[in-house]
Amino acid sequence: MPISYELIKECKQSGARLGILHTPHGEVETPIFMPVGTKATVKTMTPEELKEIETQIILSNTLHLYLRPGHELIEKAGGLHEFMHWDGPILTDSGGFQVFSLDDLRDISEEGVEFRSFIDGSKHFFTPEKSIEVQNALGADIIMAFDECPPYPAEKEYVRKSLEMTTRWAKRCKDAHKNPDTQGLFGIVQGGMFRDLREQSAKELIELDFPGYAIGGLSVGEPKDLMIEVLEYTAPMLPKDKPRYLMGIGTPDYIFEAAINGIDMFDCVYPTRIARNGTAMTSTGRINLKNAQFKEDFKPIDEACDCYACKNYTRAYVRHLVKENEILASRLVTIHNLNFLLRLSENIREAIKEDRLLDYKEEFYKKYGYIE
Amino acid sequence: MPISYELIKECKQSGARLGILHTPHGEVETPIFMPVGTKATVKTMTPEELKEIETQIILSNTLHLYLRPGHELIEKAGGLHEFMHWDGPILTDSGGFQVFSLDDLRDISEEGVEFRSFIDGSKHFFTPEKSIEVQNALGADIIMAFDECPPYPAEKEYVRKSLEMTTRWAKRCKDAHKNPDTQGLFGIVQGGMFRDLREQSAKELIELDFPGYAIGGLSVGEPKDLMIEVLEYTAPMLPKDKPRYLMGIGTPDYIFEAAINGIDMFDCVYPTRIARNGTAMTSTGRINLKNAQFKEDFKPIDEACDCYACKNYTRAYVRHLVKENEILASRLVTIHNLNFLLRLSENIREAIKEDRLLDYKEEFYKKYGYIE
Repeated sequence: MPISYELIKECKQSGARLGILHTPHGEVETPIFMPVGTKATVKTMTPEELKEIETQIILSNTLHLYLRPGHELIEKAGGLHEFMHWDGPILTDSGGFQVFSLDDLRDISEEGVEFRSFIDGSKHFFTPEKSIEVQNALGADIIMAFDECPPYPAEKEYVRKSLEMTTRWAKRCKDAHKNPDTQGLFGIVQGGMFRDLREQSAKELIELDFPGYAIGGLSVGEPKDLMIEVLEYTAPMLPKDKPRYLMGIGTPDYIFEAAINGIDMFDCVYPTRIARNGTAMTSTGRINLKNAQFKEDFKPIDEACDCYACKNYTRAYVRHLVKENEILASRLVTIHNLNFLLRLSENIREAIKEDRLLDYKEEFYKKYGYIE
Repeated sequence: MPISYELIKECKQSGARLGILHTPHGEVETPIFMPVGTKATVKTMTPEELKEIETQIILSNTLHLYLRPGHELIEKAGGLHEFMHWDGPILTDSGGFQVFSLDDLRDISEEGVEFRSFIDGSKHFFTPEKSIEVQNALGADIIMAFDECPPYPAEKEYVRKSLEMTTRWAKRCKDAHKNPDTQGLFGIVQGGMFRDLREQSAKELIELDFPGYAIGGLSVGEPKDLMIEVLEYTAPMLPKDKPRYLMGIGTPDYIFEAAINGIDMFDCVYPTRIARNGTAMTSTGRINLKNAQFKEDFKPIDEACDCYACKNYTRAYVRHLVKENEILASRLVTIHNLNFLLRLSENIREAIKEDRLLDYKEEFYKKYGYIE
């Protein structure tokens, strides 16, 4: 197995897990936030800068790379690591979530999904086999099974049929996987907001014995309380000795909830996307650097932060750059926001070690001031 | 005098000058290309990255900074060096060239120039005194006299009157200059394409005894031959013991001509601007990385280059980033292009040292393949 998970300890106060994920490109301490590099680049950043803020693993998007520049090109370049000059662990998604987001542009059958490219309208057919073929070519350390992600809300009968197809697809992915010794294939538990369907999905996928599991079908528009409820009962259905990945999580509140419920890995474009709009995540809450109040503010973005941006630049300067659409603005706020979530992950790990994650959460929010 | 120029030697083959420019923020080896940081940032780059490619001095634009974020703000921040986190030498222009480029939006009188902001249409009045007030607030090591730059072509009588006003303005700049011990004020020789007027302008300005001189009014649309002719006869009119600056020069052909004619400093937005469009300057000529021919080209941008971009990325990858409008594309090509001109400057200095600049120029073009 290319991927193994070592459970170091569980937090006595919260139940959160501290662990190490072993991958062909190095170890990852969990819980961990994974920066997203959709198109083989974490927007604005070099790999060296990602390492500077102690990024341990990044995510890249299979569908985008399949459409452009094409997985064959990346394979010829020596794989995604070589192509983008990142020698740490990489996770690629299956393309499923992106394909299903295309709404009117796609057509689902048992065989797979036909869709039109969001770039040029060209027709494509993605199947479990195709997704794995592309992910094998990209060569990420962790690859994901091609699943159907039902919308919210959805009828129970639809969700049941969907999860059963997802199981059949997961089996097809496993059979199609050509590099089981160098790339770990994760199964994705579906089942919508229905406990018995989550149980059914988890049971079926665990029988297929994947080296890790994701909880899919959350963060799709459902209320936060419902999302946490599903997370609370679904996570314990997963094997303790395998890593657990929750997709689309990138704000402190969801990160705390994920960790507390025993999730080990999470990712989101949120911190990098808002950075390019001049919004910074700080220890005292989110701030939009465009605001006039920062015009003559010569303090760093976050006084509690020691990232490159905070050590060397003022809010007044970054605000000037943001207002002028200067690329350096996007760079500085991206570095800061990713560092913020990586340090939050680190602090969460530290708190788990000391059996005080709930206390740390309370301390964090005392400064942060509000829950999103 | 905050600025002094040390002539190390003249090239026996070409007459080019090798020298050292002493400034309050360090020494600059000349001839040197100066990257442009219009809005207090060399687009896409951090100061650390500029140092990595051995940038010795940068240029910033007074008019842009006056309009946004305002020179008072930058003064409050501790000056431009502190504001933008660059501790090396800086040169600011006078704002004159930008104001005169506004065409219909400006109105010239003996007192100064009234113009409308290209940002919000607001009215402003720039005088020699105002330009120096702004440049004093910014605090660059080298500041420029506020001059009128006549268009090409222009009537001789207009050019004569204009250069005489430029002399009077230069005197007013000198009188208004509040920091003569920490900021060196350069005079700008005008006189269009007329030898006797260039002589008149040079003579009048030399009498005012500036610590350095620029040759203005070139690269304003005149044919290249004419530009070189004017340069050839104007440069020798300038004192040998003062630095000489030629504005708007940023391609190899003009850089060679400038150096051969005894110019010490030059700047241009060209290398950084084309970089953001995916065009790289290489030892074998310019290439546009968008071109299909680079799709599966796994060589570096320039095999003869050792910059960060060339050491770590392929043309195929950079092409992918350019096509996807990824910020990292602009970063990598900017690093490369600036490094290209800085290494060219370095090689020119080396060739002067060895009295073989004309030979080096020939060798350079043998590889480069063409003259722009």
